[in-house]
Amino acid sequence: MRAYNTEIISVGTEILLGHITNTDARDISEMLSKIGINVKYHTVVGDNPERLRECVEIAKHRADIIITTGGLGPTCDDLTKQILAEAFGLKLVRDEREASGLYDYIRNSRNFTPNNFQQAMLPEGCTVFHNQWGTAPGCAFTAEGKTMIMMPGPPVECIPMFRTYAVPYLRSLSDEEIVSHSIRIFGIGESAVDDIFADEMNAMVNPSLAPYAKECDCLLQVTAKAKSEAEAEAMMRPVIDHVRERLGDFVYGMDVECLEEAVLPLLQEKNMTFAAAESCTGGEIAKRITDIPGASNVFVGGAVVYTNEAKARILGLDPAMIEEKGAVSREVGIALAEHVRSLTGADIGIGVTGLAGPDGDGVHEVGTVFVAMAVEGKTYVRELALGPKRTRSFIRRMSGNHAYDMMRRWLTGLEVERYC
Amino acid sequence: MRAYNTEIISVGTEILLGHITNTDARDISEMLSKIGINVKYHTVVGDNPERLRECVEIAKHRADIIITTGGLGPTCDDLTKQILAEAFGLKLVRDEREASGLYDYIRNSRNFTPNNFQQAMLPEGCTVFHNQWGTAPGCAFTAEGKTMIMMPGPPVECIPMFRTYAVPYLRSLSDEEIVSHSIRIFGIGESAVDDIFADEMNAMVNPSLAPYAKECDCLLQVTAKAKSEAEAEAMMRPVIDHVRERLGDFVYGMDVECLEEAVLPLLQEKNMTFAAAESCTGGEIAKRITDIPGASNVFVGGAVVYTNEAKARILGLDPAMIEEKGAVSREVGIALAEHVRSLTGADIGIGVTGLAGPDGDGVHEVGTVFVAMAVEGKTYVRELALGPKRTRSFIRRMSGNHAYDMMRRWLTGLEVERYC
Repeated sequence: MRAYNTEIISVGTEILLGHITNTDARDISEMLSKIGINVKYHTVVGDNPERLRECVEIAKHRADIIITTGGLGPTCDDLTKQILAEAFGLKLVRDEREASGLYDYIRNSRNFTPNNFQQAMLPEGCTVFHNQWGTAPGCAFTAEGKTMIMMPGPPVECIPMFRTYAVPYLRSLSDEEIVSHSIRIFGIGESAVDDIFADEMNAMVNPSLAPYAKECDCLLQVTAKAKSEAEAEAMMRPVIDHVRERLGDFVYGMDVECLEEAVLPLLQEKNMTFAAAESCTGGEIAKRITDIPGASNVFVGGAVVYTNEAKARILGLDPAMIEEKGAVSREVGIALAEHVRSLTGADIGIGVTGLAGPDGDGVHEVGTVFVAMAVEGKTYVRELALGPKRTRSFIRRMSGNHAYDMMRRWLTGLEVERYC
Repeated sequence: MRAYNTEIISVGTEILLGHITNTDARDISEMLSKIGINVKYHTVVGDNPERLRECVEIAKHRADIIITTGGLGPTCDDLTKQILAEAFGLKLVRDEREASGLYDYIRNSRNFTPNNFQQAMLPEGCTVFHNQWGTAPGCAFTAEGKTMIMMPGPPVECIPMFRTYAVPYLRSLSDEEIVSHSIRIFGIGESAVDDIFADEMNAMVNPSLAPYAKECDCLLQVTAKAKSEAEAEAMMRPVIDHVRERLGDFVYGMDVECLEEAVLPLLQEKNMTFAAAESCTGGEIAKRITDIPGASNVFVGGAVVYTNEAKARILGLDPAMIEEKGAVSREVGIALAEHVRSLTGADIGIGVTGLAGPDGDGVHEVGTVFVAMAVEGKTYVRELALGPKRTRSFIRRMSGNHAYDMMRRWLTGLEVERYC
């Protein structure tokens, strides 16, 4: 397969003002890397015809595939479509199907203007991507040996449209299939993973293996190209088996985004529930599981007990014990886990207490956290020393990861307290 | 002041793979827009000398200020500095102060390699930005009428370094001061704000006034250029007063990032505390206030009561009442607020119950949320209909905003239930 060099041009003055983040370019890049298409450049340019025209000329010289995001809506006068069509000598023609769809949509809207029909004007001969997530259609065409793809800017339209229409369109350019899996790892850092596999990774081309650091965990991405998806899967299988064998139980899942996503089905399988009593994480653990639809099957609820008084009043901890041992202590961690479990009737109780910073308590270093898990008559504890140089947000997120990792390990029959 | 057209070039293959988001470009753009410097382009290019060289050549033609992020560390062989120095015919010379600092830092590290000293090689005659947040120094120089600024890639180093060193460096290029304030608004949407001020905004140049939509609120940015900061402030004062007068109590703060940041000092001033009982928000309210250091003075804690059983067991709600009224009801919202207040002894109790989706309960539409606040013997309720087309994340965040807005309004003596 030839390498398709790709450039993503995002059109939007708001990105240049720092008012919005260019997540479209990130998400499109991630989808393209999974089908083996190399993104070589991202460009952001304002809603300005002259500058966009120049950017398109530059992209024509250095890329085979040009993907634009933004500038398709009625208020931008279809800037992107006009300039891209012009750059390849194409006319814009009215797509009657899109126009009638727009008419149905808009006549019930108080914001109707004739301008709205501009959205149905598309480069002649293009493939139309109907926008079932909004109004402005996207499109694709090939001209002068280049492939052009135009997407709307709002991520809620751009990303599902790209996944639904543009990915299959781009796959059809090639007679090979590219398939990718991510192996998610917790408990061992990216540099250690790198050390283990460095020689092999350098030697591997197809399938390829590459490590990536995320904020509080890491992953290995395996990618293969073949004539069929089944063949690509077969090529990757020994690599995946090898990685799993070397990393053992530090692997927490394949093609998942986070530990809580791995824990949710494990709890469902065993028909178990959990509850959390959070001091320094302040709701992090509850928020993360409830970010996932369907969490109510496995998450009963919990308490955010930020002050000593709340620990006593909501969960019934003994104030004298807190006083004696200190709010940041193994004993308080254990009591939080056990009390929230018995109070809620959940199968598993999680308790977290520690110092997320920036201020310390004069006793412990910032980054000291006790994570406890009470289940079936036993309470496990991890004492973390995440280090005072870490941000508050890192310490909170990492503490949450440890709570989910302890559940994962217990639910899969592994030693709970083990991590690097 | 002449307009300095600026391009930000971010160097990093990981951005092109979609593994990390280019937040550096966003945050630098935001800082520059506040000092009146126009960012005209963002470019992202991989760790590849040839392609970076071409991007720098393009930027030299179209920008006056070129800012790079990334490619300064020892593992990238100082790609960025070499290529930028080369592009302007400068040599890299060893900065002895940086070298000796690096030596102190690195000799205690197990990762020492001679490569590390590459970081002390800087373009001759440049202004060095010492990196107190990491190791690789940044730098700036002016040549051929262009200003070059090089920043390290990791956001925890790039952003504080840019704020501390690069912003003053860029300000010194001009004999004018540019000052900006953001007026944060909740309870009235961006399009309504736009309607109110459209004519004035179009007519205003200095100071200027511009509206921006954020995820669940919006803001008006006022910017003025003048010979001094005091003069700029004086020019903006009538505009700010006018906006405050027109929008009244929909303005929740100036130069703050979110409602909870405005509520925290209001609670501190009155020496009051709050607690939250969260059903559909699942910890959102607790997590947001505890994201801010110092939250423990005003936030006692709370309960995440995702199931009916948790509502009864943790907070003592009457299961028969929940059964009769339904978990998503005004009555349950009120009971949550009142029970969490009396259980924790906080001055204010917040209760939230609703449907964040994607699944409904067969009775209410997704997006139906009751937000209740119990304080001084009275309980206020807002019934929200956020609409079934909104994402789970939007519904949760917006519900949290309403809880904080209700506290804000009560604490400042305003009618609590009012919003558009």
